[in-house]
Amino acid sequence: MRITALAGGVGGARFLRGLRRHLDTLPDGPHELTIIGNTGDDITLFGLRVCPDLDTLLYTLGGGVHEQQGWGRADETFAVQHELAAYEVPPQWFGLGDQDFGTHIARSLWLGQGMPLSRVTARLAERWGLPGQHVRLLPMTDTPVETHVVVEEGEEQRAMHFQEWWVRYQAQLPAVRFVVAGMDHAVAGPGVLDAIRQADVVLLPPSNPVVSIGIILTVPGVRDALRGTNAPVVGVCPLVGGAPVRGHADVCLEAIGIDVTPAGVAGLYTDFLDGWLVDERDAGAPVAGLRVRACPLLMTDVDAAAAMGAAALELAMDLRKAA
Amino acid sequence: MRITALAGGVGGARFLRGLRRHLDTLPDGPHELTIIGNTGDDITLFGLRVCPDLDTLLYTLGGGVHEQQGWGRADETFAVQHELAAYEVPPQWFGLGDQDFGTHIARSLWLGQGMPLSRVTARLAERWGLPGQHVRLLPMTDTPVETHVVVEEGEEQRAMHFQEWWVRYQAQLPAVRFVVAGMDHAVAGPGVLDAIRQADVVLLPPSNPVVSIGIILTVPGVRDALRGTNAPVVGVCPLVGGAPVRGHADVCLEAIGIDVTPAGVAGLYTDFLDGWLVDERDAGAPVAGLRVRACPLLMTDVDAAAAMGAAALELAMDLRKAA
Repeated sequence: MRITALAGGVGGARFLRGLRRHLDTLPDGPHELTIIGNTGDDITLFGLRVCPDLDTLLYTLGGGVHEQQGWGRADETFAVQHELAAYEVPPQWFGLGDQDFGTHIARSLWLGQGMPLSRVTARLAERWGLPGQHVRLLPMTDTPVETHVVVEEGEEQRAMHFQEWWVRYQAQLPAVRFVVAGMDHAVAGPGVLDAIRQADVVLLPPSNPVVSIGIILTVPGVRDALRGTNAPVVGVCPLVGGAPVRGHADVCLEAIGIDVTPAGVAGLYTDFLDGWLVDERDAGAPVAGLRVRACPLLMTDVDAAAAMGAAALELAMDLRKAA
Repeated sequence: MRITALAGGVGGARFLRGLRRHLDTLPDGPHELTIIGNTGDDITLFGLRVCPDLDTLLYTLGGGVHEQQGWGRADETFAVQHELAAYEVPPQWFGLGDQDFGTHIARSLWLGQGMPLSRVTARLAERWGLPGQHVRLLPMTDTPVETHVVVEEGEEQRAMHFQEWWVRYQAQLPAVRFVVAGMDHAVAGPGVLDAIRQADVVLLPPSNPVVSIGIILTVPGVRDALRGTNAPVVGVCPLVGGAPVRGHADVCLEAIGIDVTPAGVAGLYTDFLDGWLVDERDAGAPVAGLRVRACPLLMTDVDAAAAMGAAALELAMDLRKAA
């Protein structure tokens, strides 16, 4: 079975780690998991290229993530960052650990040698054992793109990098809209469109629908591939009881004028979504044109995430039979 | 008093730290110390620009050096390097600590922004308090240059970066000659030639006469400035009892056909050297055309280095009176 998922950072990574565990329990394996990762969060810091969502996916699936934090490396030290602060190198609002710097230095070196991000990511993924798990991690595009947030300051509007808005200002500055710098000349990364077209199942993990999944959907060809694929497309709602489990999906949805409800989020995907998994406490409200199913959507541990993966997959299988 | 010194890494840095301490005890201060640092050792590792001699000078004069080792930072950790090894990024023969990486990341960032190495070095030196000590550290050139070593392998000759020869092979591969890639279009760094011409005293610390001092002497204009300056030029012999105190000066001297003796080393500087400080156990042998003086030349601690600095300065003063 070939499963393709679109994913942002922490929520997507935790869901996919659970799904991967569930897949290993199924017969007729190994089942292949292809992840199309958001690169809109990517940022150049201290001259190094940082890919927060790809790294969270690598570290989480590879067993190196800081479990409580959800991103970054376990058992981190911060000597490099301390030195950069001593040299007064901005920015000082983005926390990078020493082990994490190792990843960014390796990536920047290889990018500087002319290697595309997809190949760089594959090399990083080897160290984290993804090929051995039958997981491919594909950046949504090899073109450098960056999500910027247009914010209102009094009568003025100004744009800042998504990470500055998210990390430095904790999404508290009023966002007017999100724009992806570089997307006008971006092309989908190698294998990305085929992974959607040739999948047996396509999943949308509970990633941020605006700044993670929403950004991947703006990559030329991705939305068309989702509309055209024969695979059932099942989404996992990132809201539980009317609020995001973590992150600031509510703020992002409000910024683009979407109701902070499971139906509101599903409305962003109506042209290609077949099934929609919502939390038990959000059950009952039908969403037009969709098979909606309810189950617990709190990823309290890997087992809970595995159960969510199983439920999403089961819904997809039912949709295949129904088709 | 304006003192200008040419310097390599560990030996030069220890001598100059001692000299700086001695200068602070003299009347009519503050006395200005300008250091012209060797950049031939510079190397790009992991995509980052590393300047071993400049960093050793910064760390030693700034109080951050690993005292026993003589280079690198005290209390280092090695998380970044460990990660780069896990990602199988070569080379794995050059040890860089996490704090040290902070320096290289800052430097590479600023160089990448178009800042010349001299300005980058001045910014790094601010953090290490050099301006407050009345010390200026000038790279010998802003032009990227690299010392390469031509070695014999059977019937063949091949060139490798000086650091590879020095660190990886511990100077054990037979060297035929040293060449400085990039020197044919290099120009002396800002202030370098004036610092020699306008000095009251010029000193050569006990740095490697071939691959440290010798490389600085190949920067266009430097040798002429030394010949032309009115300041007495006093050198401190890097050999004690016929052998280098540390490093591989003997191997370097033999490679270029020079006797491993105080007279042999002084012979490299005959066209501009006025005074020559040798160790007590090397006293007695006159060197043609030079005022030779003997004193203990083992830098067992900062006090010993300060005494050497005092002796070198005293010899220079005597030469000024004599002139």
